[in-house]
Amino acid sequence: MTRCADMRREAYSYDDIYGEYCTVQRYIDCPPRDTFEYLANIHSLSEWTYSTRDFEPTNVPDLYQGVDMLGVDTKIFMKVVANAKALTVDYHCAWDQGRELWMIYLMRVVPAELVLKRPGSVVLWTNCRHPYYSENPYPQTAPTARKEWVGDMWGIFGAGHSIELNNLKVILEYRHGSRLPVGPNLLLDS
Amino acid sequence: MTRCADMRREAYSYDDIYGEYCTVQRYIDCPPRDTFEYLANIHSLSEWTYSTRDFEPTNVPDLYQGVDMLGVDTKIFMKVVANAKALTVDYHCAWDQGRELWMIYLMRVVPAELVLKRPGSVVLWTNCRHPYYSENPYPQTAPTARKEWVGDMWGIFGAGHSIELNNLKVILEYRHGSRLPVGPNLLLDS
Repeated sequence: MTRCADMRREAYSYDDIYGEYCTVQRYIDCPPRDTFEYLANIHSLSEWTYSTRDFEPTNVPDLYQGVDMLGVDTKIFMKVVANAKALTVDYHCAWDQGRELWMIYLMRVVPAELVLKRPGSVVLWTNCRHPYYSENPYPQTAPTARKEWVGDMWGIFGAGHSIELNNLKVILEYRHGSRLPVGPNLLLDS
Repeated sequence: MTRCADMRREAYSYDDIYGEYCTVQRYIDCPPRDTFEYLANIHSLSEWTYSTRDFEPTNVPDLYQGVDMLGVDTKIFMKVVANAKALTVDYHCAWDQGRELWMIYLMRVVPAELVLKRPGSVVLWTNCRHPYYSENPYPQTAPTARKEWVGDMWGIFGAGHSIELNNLKVILEYRHGSRLPVGPNLLLDS
């Protein structure tokens, strides 16, 4: 107990919280199964993320290619790994190339009835600071005009992911509350 | 980007971080499968947690009864819900009674090779602040001599869980590094 009390500090910096692991979490008033299915659909990313758009299948099974508006002319490759029983949804992705999907967005939907005694979902979202955030391992695949590297943005992932999680919350709560299909609700060529 | 920068504060309080959701995470140099199996074994809790001990089966399938040394004469009831594919391990538990297991410790093992490009495991652990932490819903089941309620300790969960996660790390890294069975390594009557 004394050790616990000693560990508790007056103040923490942004980097204390988001330095090595970036975790955000939010309550969403939408049933866990709907939240899971929405997240597990790669096209939903075009609605609730800040900058990833326009995913299309590639020749590789389960691998999609889209664009990340964070960087000039930047392709993003993405595979969704979802587990319907555990309600986990992981986005394995990378800028520029699809051979090594090293950026992994770990998400988990938890029934809020269990953990908060109310209907809806709790969404947990963690990114771990992979060493490639510090240096692009495949510079030859980057567009020549681009100066940014995705890892330059690590320092705002905590804030950025909070905003995106709010987007997710607002979209799902609106649709669930209005008895609309949860979506995604995009005009897609099929 | 401006909104992200605006959200970034100079300093955060302990409650800003651990107020509603208490998440801790750690790298452990032990293979993910071993870490998962260790966590999924209820008897491991007697080794790595601060205060839960001596779990024994009850008449209810999958429900165990143990003691929680945090409270005087305190029984703890526990069910482990593990998913070997997603590597999630959730402890559903409660003090005093086993009918409503409202305290849920959500854990997830992530292969560190994927997210940190190194062998081993990353363990994510989240608790959500269930309303029962604020008030015992079954006071009639509490031992009369006990003044504490588990929710009184919510304020030190962040620190306490960090210490326990260190215990887990030290135990697993020692055993894995020494090529011993990961355990648990208890003298149990069977």
